[in-house]
Amino acid sequence: MARWQPGTRERLQATALQLFASRGYDQTTVAEIAAAAEVTERTFFRHFADKREVLFAGQDDFLGMFTGPIETAPAETAPFDLVRLALEASGAFFPDDRRPWSRGRQEIIDAHPALGERELGKLATLKGRLGEVFRERGIPEPAATMAAETAVTVFHLSFAQWIAADEDRSFRAIARERLDALTSLVHPAH
Amino acid sequence: MARWQPGTRERLQATALQLFASRGYDQTTVAEIAAAAEVTERTFFRHFADKREVLFAGQDDFLGMFTGPIETAPAETAPFDLVRLALEASGAFFPDDRRPWSRGRQEIIDAHPALGERELGKLATLKGRLGEVFRERGIPEPAATMAAETAVTVFHLSFAQWIAADEDRSFRAIARERLDALTSLVHPAH
Repeated sequence: MARWQPGTRERLQATALQLFASRGYDQTTVAEIAAAAEVTERTFFRHFADKREVLFAGQDDFLGMFTGPIETAPAETAPFDLVRLALEASGAFFPDDRRPWSRGRQEIIDAHPALGERELGKLATLKGRLGEVFRERGIPEPAATMAAETAVTVFHLSFAQWIAADEDRSFRAIARERLDALTSLVHPAH
Repeated sequence: MARWQPGTRERLQATALQLFASRGYDQTTVAEIAAAAEVTERTFFRHFADKREVLFAGQDDFLGMFTGPIETAPAETAPFDLVRLALEASGAFFPDDRRPWSRGRQEIIDAHPALGERELGKLATLKGRLGEVFRERGIPEPAATMAAETAVTVFHLSFAQWIAADEDRSFRAIARERLDALTSLVHPAH
């Protein structure tokens, strides 16, 4: 078996999720996941630090996808346009064919408070990193933190809708709708 | 000793916080709090369900203070003005003479993950209740949820700043600054 067989990581994720759903998250072992995906445990641990991380892998990629467009945008780009760019880019992380996996994953997380905490921790990390990126662009406080919180709120609400039952629009379309809702909400002083 | 002696509740809160800070939250018992505040344990339990709730009491009052002005505002009030009204009203919950207590309370919470979770749960309850109140006013989705999330984000950031070291402005002044930052973020041209 090749050490870096293409698709192994994805197969491990799909297999793990099936086992978590059918046997229960707590009852499923790494050995069982590896066996069901027809790889060795060693191969499993080349891809994931532990069982939990199967559900949370890719955090660095995701952070980079969110913050990259902000870091490389022209200096004169308005902060809210940076928020838009980040949300547009983050859509690449959530193609439609990933939606069933994301829905299954959320069911496991919602049923396990410790996993929910890990998820909240991820969002907090994203907020913190975004705030840094905005400040590095010279955006002062409290605008930088407000922009970071706003971006993560729109992201979080968009993601929740994207995995909602019967939802079939793209992540980007949903995120745009929420950005528009925010724009309509925040009328200039009247 | 009178059953409903004025100030007993506040004295229990102040005493508990002192003990949590000096002896540690986990090491402090209800019996010790009651003794230090010179009341019986029975009196303690008339005011608080348990030791933890000394730090989280008043949730219903706080929710009502936040949602009341939204429920009673004229029908034509714009959603963002409802957010403003709620934040203005919530300032009454955080007078300047409460700030030292709130700072001490936050130190205890930050040091105990289970208390931090309870705090996040409170914010989630507030978001959920606000969303309901906005929907009851006929605000459709996703605007209602966006308004609720925005209100709680501004509240949360304002509270964090209000208890920051060296901060001496009022909660309302800080909340207004953050609402202005949000308005400038979303509508930079104005």
